[in-house]
Amino acid sequence: MIKFDLHFTTTSNTQEKEQVFERIKDERQTQKSGYYNLPYERKALQDSTKYIQANAEILKDISHIIIIGIGGSSLGLKAIETMLYHLPHRNNISLKFLEHTDPLKIQKSLKKICIHTSLFIVISKSGMTIETISLMKYCVWRYNLLESSLKKRLLIITDKDSPLLQWAKQNHIYTIVINKNIGGRFSVLSAIGIVPLKLLGYKVEEILEGAKILQDSFFARQEEHILEKAIFMAKHHDSLPMNILFSYSSSFCNFNLWYMQLWGESLGKTNIYNTNIGLTPISLIGSIDQHSFLQLILEGKRDKTITFLGINQDYYNELVIPDIKIQELEATNFVNATSFAKLLATQRLATMQVLQEDNLPIDSIQLDSLYEKNIGALIMYYELLTSAVGCIFEINTYNQPAVERGKKLLHKIYKQI
Amino acid sequence: MIKFDLHFTTTSNTQEKEQVFERIKDERQTQKSGYYNLPYERKALQDSTKYIQANAEILKDISHIIIIGIGGSSLGLKAIETMLYHLPHRNNISLKFLEHTDPLKIQKSLKKICIHTSLFIVISKSGMTIETISLMKYCVWRYNLLESSLKKRLLIITDKDSPLLQWAKQNHIYTIVINKNIGGRFSVLSAIGIVPLKLLGYKVEEILEGAKILQDSFFARQEEHILEKAIFMAKHHDSLPMNILFSYSSSFCNFNLWYMQLWGESLGKTNIYNTNIGLTPISLIGSIDQHSFLQLILEGKRDKTITFLGINQDYYNELVIPDIKIQELEATNFVNATSFAKLLATQRLATMQVLQEDNLPIDSIQLDSLYEKNIGALIMYYELLTSAVGCIFEINTYNQPAVERGKKLLHKIYKQI
Repeated sequence: MIKFDLHFTTTSNTQEKEQVFERIKDERQTQKSGYYNLPYERKALQDSTKYIQANAEILKDISHIIIIGIGGSSLGLKAIETMLYHLPHRNNISLKFLEHTDPLKIQKSLKKICIHTSLFIVISKSGMTIETISLMKYCVWRYNLLESSLKKRLLIITDKDSPLLQWAKQNHIYTIVINKNIGGRFSVLSAIGIVPLKLLGYKVEEILEGAKILQDSFFARQEEHILEKAIFMAKHHDSLPMNILFSYSSSFCNFNLWYMQLWGESLGKTNIYNTNIGLTPISLIGSIDQHSFLQLILEGKRDKTITFLGINQDYYNELVIPDIKIQELEATNFVNATSFAKLLATQRLATMQVLQEDNLPIDSIQLDSLYEKNIGALIMYYELLTSAVGCIFEINTYNQPAVERGKKLLHKIYKQI
Repeated sequence: MIKFDLHFTTTSNTQEKEQVFERIKDERQTQKSGYYNLPYERKALQDSTKYIQANAEILKDISHIIIIGIGGSSLGLKAIETMLYHLPHRNNISLKFLEHTDPLKIQKSLKKICIHTSLFIVISKSGMTIETISLMKYCVWRYNLLESSLKKRLLIITDKDSPLLQWAKQNHIYTIVINKNIGGRFSVLSAIGIVPLKLLGYKVEEILEGAKILQDSFFARQEEHILEKAIFMAKHHDSLPMNILFSYSSSFCNFNLWYMQLWGESLGKTNIYNTNIGLTPISLIGSIDQHSFLQLILEGKRDKTITFLGINQDYYNELVIPDIKIQELEATNFVNATSFAKLLATQRLATMQVLQEDNLPIDSIQLDSLYEKNIGALIMYYELLTSAVGCIFEINTYNQPAVERGKKLLHKIYKQI
């Protein structure tokens, strides 16, 4: 269960909410983005089952899965893995990401890889991502992956019409295809996330179920806070151009990065009136970043909305601060014999209260626990919120036209340097 | 060597530069902050040598160093460790950080710790940081660190008048003291950074030497770009409230976090006219974040300055993209038989060029290599830049008054929850 609370004064009236809701309903119906469908279709689950059945022999001895993918092809999977890694049913396959072309990072990531117990999953929707293809070439060469006995150690996930798919088929490499209308940053509930997560032992059906429940509830008008928050943020985009996601657990560190891409790349657009518009996402981890960023929030320019994300302390209060009374440090005794979870949760509440006292626009998301269903719901919540702001901004939430310019220039100047 | 380039039109005149320079000179002379002195004094080096000599027996078998510290007590050390970790003279002691009170994180961090081959370094300037003291209490309890034979596995670094120092002395625990006028976020070149780095085998003298050379050069008026950049950023703080540090190597990921604290906490202040002022730092890693944030920079609101940080490709071009021509993927062949470092560097240059075409205010910092001297210089560069902006903002760059409110409230509401 997730508890959502808005602590700012919402000013949206019924008509405004109705308008945004209708636009989102329309997006879903016209399939402007395929992400709305993902919790309802069985495709990703079936793809997983089929793949696992066809490759049972290889999969029984896997110690490492290496994901070769970048941006939307890695961030969502990494986010869920980091939030759920502590669950007892997570198996002990080690998950590595090859996303960066940084030579120091590549060498570090591949240090302990033995090809005979590894599976490489190449994920690229376009099939042309330069980092991903370069890293794939490197692994193909280093581990001789096109040798007939090793081809089974390669799995490719890509769009239906991608050149990578053609090549994979010609070379008899197992492939799973993704519908073209599911953008990378909205793809974590497709096979891109679901297949690797299933291989790691997570209850992927529950992730989809959680996303489905949240979406059903939104379309049944039970989650009006999403519309209210979207309208508030869109209305004040000029005076409050930034949104901080202040997440109180290290488990959220990669979720925050997923949110940054979703928010930044979806909403940073030229709108239909040819105006540059956007909201800048900022990722913080509490309580750590109380010691680095809180001063700026409180005394710097008041140009940010702040979303607090946390976990109910009851979920994990086994780890206790020992009741050690240290002479000279009596002032720290008030936390003795309480759980670390309580300290963390209270720090979140105290920080929220200080910000509220200063009338800063904050809202709060509290999970009762970190398990699959909640995480599916949390993801769907952010996707719907992003779509809602996009509708109000009158932009195309699902493309990223500006990014292409750099790619073209890269090709052009590569030979000159 | 580091190459600094400003790609925006600087408008600062001689008089403005002179004014800022005089203020910084004054700060240094009056010891408003002690960080200016750190590269020149031998204290941190002497503290390291003395500690190592006195604890030679314990230190010869150390496999893990665990730093218990948060914010300024961990970020700088972590930044340097991540930038220099690949150097051949880095020994093989594993470095862990206990900074977060997140129970899941604590359990993960301490999983492989064996007390008989570990050293715990507690770092807290005030000696009262609630996270640090709680984690210290936990380790004292879990590993029985106050037992006489184990006390040597504890080292405390704290301010001269901190209650932690009193307690440590009473209990015969080794301590190293820090001058009070060195703020946490400006403390990495004090014993807080130098002692652990020395234990890990880094050439700490070279780090200090690099910092000294940059500072000397600045005060000899050979680094006017620092003043020009500071004046530009301060002047445009209203229309360009954010600065992105876009760092093209995973090695910079923790340096970026150090920068975020330095920039955010130093500059987010109420100024002498009682106005809230500040510049918001944003951390990106290239090329990864070209796939998540570049769209927002290019088409979103033009409210950011962007600093590109990179490494000359010649530094590490051994790792090569194999010359594999993949049918259907011919469009990716242009990178074949070139180094990953070239791909990464060219992506940085292409992205810079696209931003320049759009007249976005960018600047660039390029290191010829990742070694101690450069890193010392890079740290001093950012510290001086921050001081310069602070002088123009007419704020106290070195305090963090707003953070105290949350701490007081935490204590107050702890019993109620």
